[in-house]
Amino acid sequence: MCRFLAYRGDSIYLEDLVCRPKHSLVRQSLRAEQSVLVTNGDGFGVGWYGDRDTPGLYRQVTPAWSDENLKALAAHVRSHLFFAHVRAATGGGISLANCHPFTAASFLFMHNGQVGGFGEVHRELEAQLPDTLWHQRRGGTDSELIFLLIVQQLVNGYGPVEATCAVLSDIWGRMKSAGVEAPLRFSAALADGDDVFAFRWASDQQPPTLYHHRAAYGQMVASEPLEGDPQGWDLLEPGQALCLHADGRSSAHALTIR
Amino acid sequence: MCRFLAYRGDSIYLEDLVCRPKHSLVRQSLRAEQSVLVTNGDGFGVGWYGDRDTPGLYRQVTPAWSDENLKALAAHVRSHLFFAHVRAATGGGISLANCHPFTAASFLFMHNGQVGGFGEVHRELEAQLPDTLWHQRRGGTDSELIFLLIVQQLVNGYGPVEATCAVLSDIWGRMKSAGVEAPLRFSAALADGDDVFAFRWASDQQPPTLYHHRAAYGQMVASEPLEGDPQGWDLLEPGQALCLHADGRSSAHALTIR
Amino acid sequence: MCRFLAYRGDSIYLEDLVCRPKHSLVRQSLRAEQSVLVTNGDGFGVGWYGDRDTPGLYRQVTPAWSDENLKALAAHVRSHLFFAHVRAATGGGISLANCHPFTAASFLFMHNGQVGGFGEVHRELEAQLPDTLWHQRRGGTDSELIFLLIVQQLVNGYGPVEATCAVLSDIWGRMKSAGVEAPLRFSAALADGDDVFAFRWASDQQPPTLYHHRAAYGQMVASEPLEGDPQGWDLLEPGQALCLHADGRSSAHALTIR
Amino acid sequence: MCRFLAYRGDSIYLEDLVCRPKHSLVRQSLRAEQSVLVTNGDGFGVGWYGDRDTPGLYRQVTPAWSDENLKALAAHVRSHLFFAHVRAATGGGISLANCHPFTAASFLFMHNGQVGGFGEVHRELEAQLPDTLWHQRRGGTDSELIFLLIVQQLVNGYGPVEATCAVLSDIWGRMKSAGVEAPLRFSAALADGDDVFAFRWASDQQPPTLYHHRAAYGQMVASEPLEGDPQGWDLLEPGQALCLHADGRSSAHALTIR
Repeated sequence: MCRFLAYRGDSIYLEDLVCRPKHSLVRQSLRAEQSVLVTNGDGFGVGWYGDRDTPGLYRQVTPAWSDENLKALAAHVRSHLFFAHVRAATGGGISLANCHPFTAASFLFMHNGQVGGFGEVHRELEAQLPDTLWHQRRGGTDSELIFLLIVQQLVNGYGPVEATCAVLSDIWGRMKSAGVEAPLRFSAALADGDDVFAFRWASDQQPPTLYHHRAAYGQMVASEPLEGDPQGWDLLEPGQALCLHADGRSSAHALTIR
Repeated sequence: MCRFLAYRGDSIYLEDLVCRPKHSLVRQSLRAEQSVLVTNGDGFGVGWYGDRDTPGLYRQVTPAWSDENLKALAAHVRSHLFFAHVRAATGGGISLANCHPFTAASFLFMHNGQVGGFGEVHRELEAQLPDTLWHQRRGGTDSELIFLLIVQQLVNGYGPVEATCAVLSDIWGRMKSAGVEAPLRFSAALADGDDVFAFRWASDQQPPTLYHHRAAYGQMVASEPLEGDPQGWDLLEPGQALCLHADGRSSAHALTIR
Repeated sequence: MCRFLAYRGDSIYLEDLVCRPKHSLVRQSLRAEQSVLVTNGDGFGVGWYGDRDTPGLYRQVTPAWSDENLKALAAHVRSHLFFAHVRAATGGGISLANCHPFTAASFLFMHNGQVGGFGEVHRELEAQLPDTLWHQRRGGTDSELIFLLIVQQLVNGYGPVEATCAVLSDIWGRMKSAGVEAPLRFSAALADGDDVFAFRWASDQQPPTLYHHRAAYGQMVASEPLEGDPQGWDLLEPGQALCLHADGRSSAHALTIR
Repeated sequence: MCRFLAYRGDSIYLEDLVCRPKHSLVRQSLRAEQSVLVTNGDGFGVGWYGDRDTPGLYRQVTPAWSDENLKALAAHVRSHLFFAHVRAATGGGISLANCHPFTAASFLFMHNGQVGGFGEVHRELEAQLPDTLWHQRRGGTDSELIFLLIVQQLVNGYGPVEATCAVLSDIWGRMKSAGVEAPLRFSAALADGDDVFAFRWASDQQPPTLYHHRAAYGQMVASEPLEGDPQGWDLLEPGQALCLHADGRSSAHALTIR
């Protein structure tokens, strides 16, 4: 179980959300409150969009709470759309390639959750990837693999919500075929430089928490409210996708996974 | 507040105490129970004596709980006298030179505690070091500095208990002169290859916990009992030093600090 | 092009070969002499056998020349059979899982060379692995994949030389089928705790250098002579395998790859 | 002997100088040409000014040539004034605190050279620092210490050239008093967010190389020309300081050290 946040709005310094709030993501790396795993010290990452099509990326295998580079970067990099993630490893060792967010083409992705019984379906899922995406795989996590499978659908022309539903349906189907009883849990965010898509779904109706919040300067989703006060932080419904649009609107969509 | 353990007895694999027990030191790095700071993820270290006069040393700035090298080393290195320490940084950044245990000549040392108002007395304490030891300072912690000050006393011919009392008295005296109100807290272990000396003292009578335990194969001190059951783990008295002798005996000494 | 050494003989400190010689492996990490790539700074590793069936392992992604832990370990760990490797990455990023030596069951393996056009045959080679070994793959190098393919043959009952010939023949065959013109080059060492098998072969007759040397206390193979004087260091013939036996003998074998 | 570059001009992506040129600084980290030490793999750093008074900073203890974060950052961070440095350690271990550039208040500093016989004057030089700056010291290098001594002079109201001359005179004087025969060599750059000051001086008239170059978009100094063609790269004279002004001019100054 990891912790993450995704922001869309006016261009702000990353530190305004990543480091400064009372219950900032850096704080959550040391002491999360709404998670079974208190410590998220198995690496972290930030990804942000600037003037280029592809996002910038800074990831480390060490804990976020003590990283001097993160502190300096977050104080000097500004963005209108950024992701930040702190990891509690559940599978796939501690390595840079296993740190979120992941990037492919102009997309950013991060995930909190787990493919139950991943070992049972891991190999056949990788076999689904076309050669080009297979060669882009760097690490061993279920999260990166889900991302690449979604990218394949996006490349095929599906929208983010359809792509994600198709991939989760396929994975869950394979889990059931393999006799896996552990659940598939998926709280995630995906961006293409314009919009942010947030997802919250689990096969056992218990997806990790994910909150939506509006500030004067923009909107965000986060695993936990960034301030002590939860008011104004709305939990996404299980089975819900939420799009944070570039124009400041948000729109909810139902995830149909079967 | 860190967590540590020191062992003296038959030659055993480090993993028998560092990795395997239910509440092993590696487990304590992720979730300590008798400490305000739950997470001790700011680096770790092991030191051990073998056939040579000087100890072996393996330290990292990353968390102990995920270190593959520690796991492999602890499964293949055996010793009759070893230290292990997991760090929760209270001052002095995250760097190898700030990880315990520290070594000088044939001595090993590790510490859990804090010199209150360290910034007020830091410079004058360093100024006490003779040139040779001043040049051996590698990091910025109060712990390493205390160790080097103790080594100076040992070199001058004092025994471990006298040396430690002299240094703590001097530091506490300087803290009082500087108007520091925060306490001096000191739970620590020192070894010379033969015996282990464990110390528990604080100016406010609240030193970090330190337990003594006898097993069939040897004896140890540790910040927390290594198994769920605390029976057979005896808390050292505040103001007490305990020597784990090479011949299997232990002897208690009073720390006189004024 | 990496540099490595493998030792079999009396139990000696690792530092006697890894750190101390004038042209030690640590020295070669900074300035190799018989290689196109001068610097081998993309990580390193040592593996050694002690009292247990499986080997000990210490690997890092940082350069060997400045690693304080390597220095301390090599001064305190003794072994009758050990491997050491410094890496110059040619493919597969800088990560712990890509550092040599690799281990599986009781085997150790390290490699210097390259599968030409690896991208062309990578996926089909991985597909050859049975599930058990597929799940043991941690990194992305051709070297680790060759090792696991060899382990598969060993598990099937073949000896080290036959197993290696079968795997290299298969890989080279696939390279030719895929139209790869770049060569397959393979200087490597494999151990099972008793004997060391060294291999030197290339499809273009230009395998990386590999020398055999006898000392009073044991024998070794190394990419470059460890002392300035090359006398007493015999270059293995291309197409040759050399076994360093536990009883002090060595035996040469022809590699038949077609 | 390290390698560095400093840029002042239009806002450009860091990668335009740090990664892309044929003989870029990243390339120099692996294979420098005008240095006794070919490899500069003991850490690296970049510092840049943006909208804030203080500079951004990204440093690592690992080699620059393989750092994925550096590649991503350099492709997404733009600046009108930035420093980049790759280190070959001559003293002071491999740690983040020993990586250049250094920062204090709004200043950036980096250095290539050495205080001969540093151990002889180290302690008395540190003793010169006022408490505030003494507490800002993080590492153990001569470079960081020189910087803090220069900052002290700047705070006292001296200009960069006077401040540097005063500090170098003082150090050289102490070296002579201590009977040090090894030279004091100093190629360095200092910035305050507006101008860059470059220095080239040595007590034995053999300071490390430092070149000045003008491009259409700005000007820079670098240890080695960034392209194969050295035309248009002018070596600073020994004893020379060069200011790269914010308005595009440059001005030369003599260093008076006695």
